[in-house]
Amino acid sequence: MANPVQLNEDEKTWERIFITSAALQRARELELVSAGITLPQAAVLYFLKTSSEPLTPMKLSRLIHKEPHTISALVHRMEAQGLVSTKKDMARKNWVRVSLTKKGNAALTRQLSQRTAMNITTRLSREEVATLNTILRKLHEAAVELIRQMRRSPYDEPLG
Amino acid sequence: MANPVQLNEDEKTWERIFITSAALQRARELELVSAGITLPQAAVLYFLKTSSEPLTPMKLSRLIHKEPHTISALVHRMEAQGLVSTKKDMARKNWVRVSLTKKGNAALTRQLSQRTAMNITTRLSREEVATLNTILRKLHEAAVELIRQMRRSPYDEPLG
Repeated sequence: MANPVQLNEDEKTWERIFITSAALQRARELELVSAGITLPQAAVLYFLKTSSEPLTPMKLSRLIHKEPHTISALVHRMEAQGLVSTKKDMARKNWVRVSLTKKGNAALTRQLSQRTAMNITTRLSREEVATLNTILRKLHEAAVELIRQMRRSPYDEPLG
Repeated sequence: MANPVQLNEDEKTWERIFITSAALQRARELELVSAGITLPQAAVLYFLKTSSEPLTPMKLSRLIHKEPHTISALVHRMEAQGLVSTKKDMARKNWVRVSLTKKGNAALTRQLSQRTAMNITTRLSREEVATLNTILRKLHEAAVELIRQMRRSPYDEPLG
């Protein structure tokens, strides 16, 4: 390759996805300052509230696509702040259930009172939003498949 | 509101953008393990190589949409690893130019030898990729505008 830094059309699109999602997250982060929580905390609170099944740190790590040790550290900090509680399951070794506390619920309500960034696609036409959703579904599926193929460290939870 | 956790269509789309970009980044992160660099390092190396103007930590923070102190810490760690060098400008206080070292250049070449995740949009039709790019441009522009409005701490660099 003459110029190894040269990107093809797909790679330029990847770069645009990367930068756009960083900008969207930065906007949401600034919006959450007034709610007193960070973006990763907001994601954990939201999944704990909406999940139909009990969540473990490993399940959260799969939902949020972050490394298990990152999520464990986050959950520990949130527990110290009183936002979540954890409970060990005696029957299943290493199985820890994470739950929302009253304080965590209040933080979630504060978080959801700030929704300007979350409504940024109101700038798009309804056709564009529908197409975007179709594309995102395909990309998410492809990414999950790729993660499964490339995974070097255990990313699945055998027991939980 | 009856159920404060209920999300409208735009907010569900935001959630899908969030989760999809996290999965794409996780795939890229796993891909970069073999190159021996992290995703934020990869972004810094790439921008240093391709920027048409000298870059300061503040300019990098605007390009990557991360907080200035996050980028400063990252640049310091990368300098300690020999991937970048920094040079103070005597004429302009607080102005630090970040440059790629030979070792940083080699790391960039290793990074760009792994491109499977970056080519994930090959799963889409060319029409979908074109539409995605149009949508991303609009969303990026809207997000940058929102960041500008919501910014509480200095995010711009007056002199650099």
